[in-house]
Amino acid sequence: MPTPRMWNHGAMSASDDVLATDLAHVFHSWSAQDKVNPMVIDSAEGSWLTAADGKRYLDFSSQLVFTNIGHGHPKVVEAIANQAAKLCTLAPAHASQAKSGAARRVAEIAPGDLDSVFFTNGGAEATEHAVRMARQFTGRNKILSRYRSYHGATSTAITITGDERRFPNDLGTMGTVHFFGPFLYRSVFDSQTEEQECERALKHLEQTIVMEGPSTIAAVMLESIPGTAGIMVPPAGYLAGVRALCDTYGLVLILDEVMAGFGRAGSWLALDHFDVVPDLMTFAKGVTSGYVPLGGVAISKKIRDFFGERPYPGGLTYSGHPLACAAAVATIDVMREEGIVEQAAALGTDVFGPGLAKIAENHPSVGEVRGIGAFWALDLVSDPQTKAPITPEALAATVGAAKQAGLMPFSSGNRIHVVPACNISPEDARTGLDILDSALTAADDAIG
Amino acid sequence: MPTPRMWNHGAMSASDDVLATDLAHVFHSWSAQDKVNPMVIDSAEGSWLTAADGKRYLDFSSQLVFTNIGHGHPKVVEAIANQAAKLCTLAPAHASQAKSGAARRVAEIAPGDLDSVFFTNGGAEATEHAVRMARQFTGRNKILSRYRSYHGATSTAITITGDERRFPNDLGTMGTVHFFGPFLYRSVFDSQTEEQECERALKHLEQTIVMEGPSTIAAVMLESIPGTAGIMVPPAGYLAGVRALCDTYGLVLILDEVMAGFGRAGSWLALDHFDVVPDLMTFAKGVTSGYVPLGGVAISKKIRDFFGERPYPGGLTYSGHPLACAAAVATIDVMREEGIVEQAAALGTDVFGPGLAKIAENHPSVGEVRGIGAFWALDLVSDPQTKAPITPEALAATVGAAKQAGLMPFSSGNRIHVVPACNISPEDARTGLDILDSALTAADDAIG
Ligand SMILES: Cc1ncc(COP(=O)(O)O)c(C=O)c1O
Ligand SMILES: Cc1ncc(COP(=O)(O)O)c(C=O)c1O
Repeated sequence: MPTPRMWNHGAMSASDDVLATDLAHVFHSWSAQDKVNPMVIDSAEGSWLTAADGKRYLDFSSQLVFTNIGHGHPKVVEAIANQAAKLCTLAPAHASQAKSGAARRVAEIAPGDLDSVFFTNGGAEATEHAVRMARQFTGRNKILSRYRSYHGATSTAITITGDERRFPNDLGTMGTVHFFGPFLYRSVFDSQTEEQECERALKHLEQTIVMEGPSTIAAVMLESIPGTAGIMVPPAGYLAGVRALCDTYGLVLILDEVMAGFGRAGSWLALDHFDVVPDLMTFAKGVTSGYVPLGGVAISKKIRDFFGERPYPGGLTYSGHPLACAAAVATIDVMREEGIVEQAAALGTDVFGPGLAKIAENHPSVGEVRGIGAFWALDLVSDPQTKAPITPEALAATVGAAKQAGLMPFSSGNRIHVVPACNISPEDARTGLDILDSALTAADDAIG
Repeated sequence: MPTPRMWNHGAMSASDDVLATDLAHVFHSWSAQDKVNPMVIDSAEGSWLTAADGKRYLDFSSQLVFTNIGHGHPKVVEAIANQAAKLCTLAPAHASQAKSGAARRVAEIAPGDLDSVFFTNGGAEATEHAVRMARQFTGRNKILSRYRSYHGATSTAITITGDERRFPNDLGTMGTVHFFGPFLYRSVFDSQTEEQECERALKHLEQTIVMEGPSTIAAVMLESIPGTAGIMVPPAGYLAGVRALCDTYGLVLILDEVMAGFGRAGSWLALDHFDVVPDLMTFAKGVTSGYVPLGGVAISKKIRDFFGERPYPGGLTYSGHPLACAAAVATIDVMREEGIVEQAAALGTDVFGPGLAKIAENHPSVGEVRGIGAFWALDLVSDPQTKAPITPEALAATVGAAKQAGLMPFSSGNRIHVVPACNISPEDARTGLDILDSALTAADDAIG
């Protein structure tokens, strides 16, 4: 006989109960479970989070860089409620107005003939399926991707990833090969200028392709602008150069727009800045501003047509989920109606560009500031000469000071990323920069 | 300068526009894209779908076997709307009432000391992370799973899967090994009785473990009741026998409750019928009735504690997404309040058990009927003696006849699965069986 259950839950409204329950029952991503220290968040609106203790935080993280339209946008909230009431869920085989609407909008946003859209739940699955399409299409296995990148945490995605999160998951059997991309501030090519860095990085990639053997390579996969790895806007000509190499050697080009796309870079897609059309483009995060999990792959005509008569060997239960697609439709429409992409571009040129340059001047711990739109990184160093990364302790002190002052920053490696909502008000953006300016004295102190 | 976009979408209310847009822009799971033929669904309520042409269908599929509480349950719809308005989304590092509430409920439902919950977006990611936990915990790589199983479509999940969807994705490099599970109707062990089948299947598994080498094996992964592969309820003693083998040889046992769990089998979990406690349990689908994408892994204390001081090397942007977790809380509470698990059990004993037995008697094309709760399969054959599967054409004719008569069935391989909402009314359930009864004459005709 089925075991009876012991139910033990009331309303759980007290914040200490929420925290205690989290610590007892939630297993946390990328963490040692005994060391997590979650903050209980009660509600959120626009660029502001309210913690359970009543304290408010200015969200300079967009959570994991996905609330591109801010929190709780009333039009998207309404669209979610309406879709939930009418047709909340559906199997992928059926068509729905929400799914067709989302697919059409993504096709309009995607460049060139990337007019066919495969929906997933998030970015990692988008990577998995884009790679599968490329492998099936070419009949080859190897995927080339860059060091300093992140593409998700499922088995293929994490081995394509070029950061240390790959190490414990890499058996070396997945057919992934890494190369170095352009990154002038920490150049591995001994370059002095962006032009040199671009040229040398392209030469390095071509050599890698040749020595790996083009006939063994399915695709080159790149973030249009690497995000978590440090927001390195590629030099003019780099992505076009990669496109040309893929054409020369017959490789599929996959661009990952999961973090950089949907307004983040002050353009609908980050690739818009570089006039390049990939064969496959992955997306997630900003497409729904994270309100409902959604990701996907925009597919070029030749790859879509390859699967015209031949079944595509992949799928998932929630591909084209109506609630997620309705959130995407509403998010994209809000972005258009309110000019949120243009707002992000203006934030970059008018607020973050000049504001962060000034911060860099004031703080010896800021080795470099780089970015575009609402997508900026402060590369923090303990020695401006050697560019040695700041210590984890000094970074923690800086982040702690910012939180103390009511700013929720995003940090990764030795960096603080400035990645607020793309429609944060210029006033809030300046308030955040002021807090950051003060907090960075903690980083300066560590230089001694 | 960023490319301007050509926007081309009005309200898109006409159903032919929805269909045309789907065909132009949606890339479909597991399909040859030129051959898809989606039905446009407009709305859904309880066990009924309304197509765009106004025709209503009784949903005997639960879509992909996930709307366990039926469509559009008002309490869950309301919970989604409320959560969307208050705190729609949040990064995994933070705690929220919705996430804590969902984690506590899943921990209460999961057996033994599986009290820690890692949330994912769906079933495939649950497989990926469960397998990663087992590999990290044991320091070994191989995963043993059964032929005739489905565990998802990301790289590791699809190679653990034991059906033909694995073939085009299997490079043989993923460390997965398959064995045969018990399936008396199509026994590979020449068994005559369930007892024999059970004993021989366990002996076969033990031999496989020994010959593969226990020191190379991280885990055995099984669906508690294999779903898409044919709903083969394991004989009494089989899962307990697998548990004992895992204990003897020091292997992690992962049970997949993605399809069979959350009421489907007439119990909270399918494993409840077998008095067995795995080390890891995956779930998805029914946990939110598919209203918002959610899956996860329930984790035993010893594996959770293994990651107490040591970081778990995995994560995803939407782990513990508030909207998804709020849907889980509401779904589980509705299941409890309305006795939906008990309803599913009664459907099995009172309606589907006897009703399908009668159908099997009436139709030579029905080789076997098997199942439990709201989870049944009709194994269709073109020859009752040899048990040769029905032809795809005859199956299509049967499914077509059912749809024509207003029933939306679920078919897989040579089978029709009877998998309606767990709270379908007995009257609707009987109506559906009557339609199926008539439709099966198309299958009988093919026997000649
Ligand atoms: C560029 C990029 N690609 C892929 C992913 C993976 O997305 P998800 O976490 O939704 O699986 C991320 C997540 O941060 C990302 O930043
Ligand atoms: C038993 C089982 N496990 C895992 C999965 C994969 O789940 P998803 O499609 O949500 O990735 C499925 C999907 O049908 C399933 O039935």
